[in-house]
Amino acid sequence: MRDLTPLMEPRSVAVIGASATPPKPGYLLLKNIVDGGYPGAIYPINPRGGSILGHQAYPTIGDVPGPVDLAFVVLGREAIPGVLRACIAKGVKAALIITAGFREVGGEGDRLQAELEAITRESDLLVVGPNTIGMVSMPGRLVASFVPFPTWTDGPVALFAQTGLFGGALMAEKMSQEVQRLGIACSLAVGNKVGVDEVDYLGYARQQPAIRAVGMYLEGLRDPRAFAQAAGEVNREKPIVVVKPGRQPSGARASLAHTGSTPMEDARVDAALRDAGVHRAEDLEDLFACLKMMTWQPLPRGRRIAIATWTGAQGVIAMDQVDDYGLVPAEISEATRERIAPHLPDWLPVLNPVDVWPALDRGPRQVTDETLGALLADPANDMVLGMILAVEGADFPEVRAVFTSLRARYPDKPLALVIFGPEPKTRWVREIEGLQIPVFPSTRTAIRALAAAASQATAPR
Amino acid sequence: MRDLTPLMEPRSVAVIGASATPPKPGYLLLKNIVDGGYPGAIYPINPRGGSILGHQAYPTIGDVPGPVDLAFVVLGREAIPGVLRACIAKGVKAALIITAGFREVGGEGDRLQAELEAITRESDLLVVGPNTIGMVSMPGRLVASFVPFPTWTDGPVALFAQTGLFGGALMAEKMSQEVQRLGIACSLAVGNKVGVDEVDYLGYARQQPAIRAVGMYLEGLRDPRAFAQAAGEVNREKPIVVVKPGRQPSGARASLAHTGSTPMEDARVDAALRDAGVHRAEDLEDLFACLKMMTWQPLPRGRRIAIATWTGAQGVIAMDQVDDYGLVPAEISEATRERIAPHLPDWLPVLNPVDVWPALDRGPRQVTDETLGALLADPANDMVLGMILAVEGADFPEVRAVFTSLRARYPDKPLALVIFGPEPKTRWVREIEGLQIPVFPSTRTAIRALAAAASQATAPR
Repeated sequence: MRDLTPLMEPRSVAVIGASATPPKPGYLLLKNIVDGGYPGAIYPINPRGGSILGHQAYPTIGDVPGPVDLAFVVLGREAIPGVLRACIAKGVKAALIITAGFREVGGEGDRLQAELEAITRESDLLVVGPNTIGMVSMPGRLVASFVPFPTWTDGPVALFAQTGLFGGALMAEKMSQEVQRLGIACSLAVGNKVGVDEVDYLGYARQQPAIRAVGMYLEGLRDPRAFAQAAGEVNREKPIVVVKPGRQPSGARASLAHTGSTPMEDARVDAALRDAGVHRAEDLEDLFACLKMMTWQPLPRGRRIAIATWTGAQGVIAMDQVDDYGLVPAEISEATRERIAPHLPDWLPVLNPVDVWPALDRGPRQVTDETLGALLADPANDMVLGMILAVEGADFPEVRAVFTSLRARYPDKPLALVIFGPEPKTRWVREIEGLQIPVFPSTRTAIRALAAAASQATAPR
Repeated sequence: MRDLTPLMEPRSVAVIGASATPPKPGYLLLKNIVDGGYPGAIYPINPRGGSILGHQAYPTIGDVPGPVDLAFVVLGREAIPGVLRACIAKGVKAALIITAGFREVGGEGDRLQAELEAITRESDLLVVGPNTIGMVSMPGRLVASFVPFPTWTDGPVALFAQTGLFGGALMAEKMSQEVQRLGIACSLAVGNKVGVDEVDYLGYARQQPAIRAVGMYLEGLRDPRAFAQAAGEVNREKPIVVVKPGRQPSGARASLAHTGSTPMEDARVDAALRDAGVHRAEDLEDLFACLKMMTWQPLPRGRRIAIATWTGAQGVIAMDQVDDYGLVPAEISEATRERIAPHLPDWLPVLNPVDVWPALDRGPRQVTDETLGALLADPANDMVLGMILAVEGADFPEVRAVFTSLRARYPDKPLALVIFGPEPKTRWVREIEGLQIPVFPSTRTAIRALAAAASQATAPR
């Protein structure tokens, strides 16, 4: 496990292959670093010298007058071995290679990647890539991606990907959302990972106090045993959620073509993750939902779930999913029944799920507050899910105040919501997610994330 | 199977329990019928008479001067048996009972429901409900729901639900979407279904030429054999997609409490649906995705899928899901390879999925057009999925023209898309869905829907 500080929080960066011509990658990358407000020294490297985007360019990395912590490399693949040697000679500490066309394509790419691996092995240079889209690091105030992010919300999550996934459009989509934005401390894409790998990254995530959870997209594990051990240690303090495709033969073949990842028997991957207590997400939506649930809310103390629903059908669908994901329908304790019953019509019993709809004409604010409050207070459950219909008759202006008070009164019980409807849905989501109460797009997403949080709470310590 | 024309296309309606006081249900329902532009006679029924929302009210249904095809009933549960008898005496043809508190709550509710069942059995009255939120019928120009729909997009889909689901917030959400709106011809919620049931509705859907697919949310099947037979017949001409919860013990218990549906062994439900060739959707998102896929695009002729992806990782994730849902990765034929290869860098082979990303700097319009065009033309596949990153470098102004031309050139091959990113995503989705090419929110949703369409194409005829 190597110290990634020079990579994640460099004091100076070079862009080897910097260009003054949009939309060349060497231009876009440099522009985003500059526009992102990186506070350290920036050295464009270009044989023609001159000035690029206001920064003095140098013909080679060896010509840079000061020390360089991190060099980005955006050149043709044949040039990369020589550039890495020049970086080592210069005393550069980390190199991130954007260029693709290595092991994932075979032939000459194979030979070149073997050369990069040899250079990496024989030096202390932290090599990231090749075949990566870059990185974003809030601790380093460094936005080194091709995508211009107008906003980037800092937060408790570290992302790691063996692909450009999180540096590109997906993160741009997440960060452009008006609501439901999960704060991300840093995001590193390692592509074919000749050097820096998932185990190094876990070490960095562990030592950063601001990081409270790690999300990973992995196509291969370099050393499953080392990963299981490192992940197990980190997971005791900070939940790790992993997407690992290649579960099926077609996915494994596509993975080999994509990042040159050797297919692994999926049962071995599953076992390594399970041994480490790490949650394997079903897909990217699941990954983000789990990270939100785990960082925004306390972990549940067990698997018993209580549900309040504004629509009976959603309650029925949800209870199937409760069983699907290994949660347990909670009993509603006698005291809770007595608290909720006065709000329901006489003919409607207090069950789990509590069907709130017929009560709404008695005042949606009061019904929401009392029903969710009673369930949150009930020691017979470990978590509460509210499924709300955002329609005229269910709306009230004090949404924020009601949920602020619910969180303040029951801070130790995890709460998640699903909200359907046209308006006032957007306002509800904005106000409720502003309180770090997650609002999920479907019952499946919510229940899957709650189940993952419950598993995390009971993971090996 | 009864003729539902008087229910779905009534020439006159009454609202028994109409009220002049918002937000009482008897007010909201009447107001939405009036505002929805219903062209037939409207008779509010209220003991006080007078005029409600511009329509002459009558003390009882018997006092209405003209014939009444359909009566909505919004009264306390004890009054319902008497009201039904009055409807029969008046010669009303259909009655839709909004009121809840019957079998789903047991006790007195049980007894009252048995009475409604007896009345229904002994008459020709088409009884819908009790415990339903209402209906919407574009053939009848009748919006009889509590939710005011500012827009309702007519279309080829008929929805049926044993709950208020589609009459309420879910449909309000769907219909308020600026994009991704699926047109719905009619939507009927039957609640505890003492009378009109899923088999009757299938008969109506079958005889309407404008209806090309049926979506159903079922909690119970009254007569599984009759359903399987009717569904099998309809499904030959018009695909049926069903959500049936109660798969798990907790869901079955919740279903009993919700609509008083007798739990059915899930294997029997599965068998009945499979025998009929009907697709059982995983959840509501799946239901709408399948209906969109099946009504907007031709059905695939087999299970071979070709994928073009703007991000390698999504391609890998997608290939796992191709296996998950029983599709088959298509070979890329030699001619197609030769068409696509010139657009890719030399080092990148043409595989399935085709990784388009490295080609985009050669011009996104041309790459999009040529890659998707070549795959659509390839006889070695039965369907094409494009997964597009909506980012600056992948954007071009002629999106609509390119996809219009692709559709025109290859009208017989189904095409689906997934689009990630911030902007220009919204513009792309609007322009592409305007051409009835579905854009799905995730690879899972897309592949699940394509697999369902492939099963439909090969269903028993």
